[in-house]
Amino acid sequence: MRFGANDRSVIDRLKWLEGTLAPAMKKALLLSGPIPLKVIMIKALAMGDEMHQRNIAASSVFAREILPRLVRVEEDPVRLQEITDFVTGNDQFFLNLAMASGKAIMDPAKNVKDSCIVTAMSRNGTNFGIKISALGERWFEAPVEMPVGLYFPGYSEEDANPDMGDSAITETMGIGGFAMGSAPAVVKFVGAGTAADAFRYSKSMREITAGVSNTLVMPAMDFTGTPTGIDIRKVVETGITPVINTGMAHKKAGVGQIGAGIVHAPMACFTKALEAFAEYEGISITD
Amino acid sequence: MRFGANDRSVIDRLKWLEGTLAPAMKKALLLSGPIPLKVIMIKALAMGDEMHQRNIAASSVFAREILPRLVRVEEDPVRLQEITDFVTGNDQFFLNLAMASGKAIMDPAKNVKDSCIVTAMSRNGTNFGIKISALGERWFEAPVEMPVGLYFPGYSEEDANPDMGDSAITETMGIGGFAMGSAPAVVKFVGAGTAADAFRYSKSMREITAGVSNTLVMPAMDFTGTPTGIDIRKVVETGITPVINTGMAHKKAGVGQIGAGIVHAPMACFTKALEAFAEYEGISITD
Repeated sequence: MRFGANDRSVIDRLKWLEGTLAPAMKKALLLSGPIPLKVIMIKALAMGDEMHQRNIAASSVFAREILPRLVRVEEDPVRLQEITDFVTGNDQFFLNLAMASGKAIMDPAKNVKDSCIVTAMSRNGTNFGIKISALGERWFEAPVEMPVGLYFPGYSEEDANPDMGDSAITETMGIGGFAMGSAPAVVKFVGAGTAADAFRYSKSMREITAGVSNTLVMPAMDFTGTPTGIDIRKVVETGITPVINTGMAHKKAGVGQIGAGIVHAPMACFTKALEAFAEYEGISITD
Repeated sequence: MRFGANDRSVIDRLKWLEGTLAPAMKKALLLSGPIPLKVIMIKALAMGDEMHQRNIAASSVFAREILPRLVRVEEDPVRLQEITDFVTGNDQFFLNLAMASGKAIMDPAKNVKDSCIVTAMSRNGTNFGIKISALGERWFEAPVEMPVGLYFPGYSEEDANPDMGDSAITETMGIGGFAMGSAPAVVKFVGAGTAADAFRYSKSMREITAGVSNTLVMPAMDFTGTPTGIDIRKVVETGITPVINTGMAHKKAGVGQIGAGIVHAPMACFTKALEAFAEYEGISITD
């Protein structure tokens, strides 16, 4: 295989997700209607999650919501055991749902006239890209940075791929690194200092956002809302770039996560986007 | 019925607990060995529980531990649905386990020569009683106080029974009111003020205990251990009595919990116990 080591177990697992988990989850949701993920996120912020590198509370609360439905819709006992093991077996289960929430929340913010709010941030392992509202689907890219953090035993920076993945959609909507003030425990996991640093990160992200969430509040920070709506003008003006709590992936396909750390979106994405935004607005920029 | 209104639904539920839930839980535990509740409590303290009036994290984490076992041992699909609903349906589920843990942790501290550490605190709705280590099974009693807190809609203090129940075994081992510093959200639920008050309660309990736990730590209080081992000498000397986060029960049997609040163990229990302890030690007390 050209890209390396996606062995049988990786493929089998993907097929199991498609053939066993997904149909059961779908039936479970149809049984008694949607599960409001935002309510789970609000609870989890009060329970020490930031929902990028720490999801134990959200995963646990979600498991309690979905399992009473799954035991009703999955009639095959062996499949029910596999699904229950999968849903309960990973503290990071909810990250997948947090990412989907981020996408669902940010997509409607696209294509708003005159808006320079960031609607997506993503990385392909080589470049970091952002989109801004008024400019729709156009990507503004710059080379990704290397995350700084802690590696799992047996791995080091030389095994790691540069910053990669679409999980930064969580920070785009204001959780993850932006909500670190709610999750002092994650600071140790990503090697980012002390509990005081967690508050500092959330406060500094407040300087580059349009506002704070009125529902996703951080009890540990006097119930302040999470900073939300990254404004590229504020990023360029303050020199503060969005912080992302990220997993480090091995550079060989199939190995998976080998650490967790902090990475920043590169400033060049924001300056490029701001230049394009100025052009769109018919404003000439002179340094 | 002499004591009032334990209607059919209450009795049926107790019979269901005995005939359906308990056998399944037993089989689930035999399937792959004990579940370490202390580990769950350590996690839950990092997730905002104090495990008397706030158990959402501990209940959720426990559900994730027990459900993969229950789906293997309970073969009847309807019973499995009922059990899953019960285990996942109540944020306070873990309180029962926290109480059993408290009892299991404090009982071995009984009958230690020369020890005046409190090994039990309990209330029967009329009297509050404590036991101390050196004096074994002897109760030192005083009239219970009335909890102060918030009533559920439709109820008020005149519906409430004075302080009642055996759940104060959680405070005896150092969680509940003693661990409020880990659970700022509970302060609103029990009507005890602000987040700063939560820290204040845990700090003041530190003044009447022999020490702090080395495993049950409160991340929100710089990872200080929960105050544990109430020393009756310190209670009498400081005038600080143990704080208990309690549920208010309706005075008519069968209605159940109608509010949540704070109550203190009455000082007379401790002065009586100290007098008896002095006598046991052959010391004469003069005021």
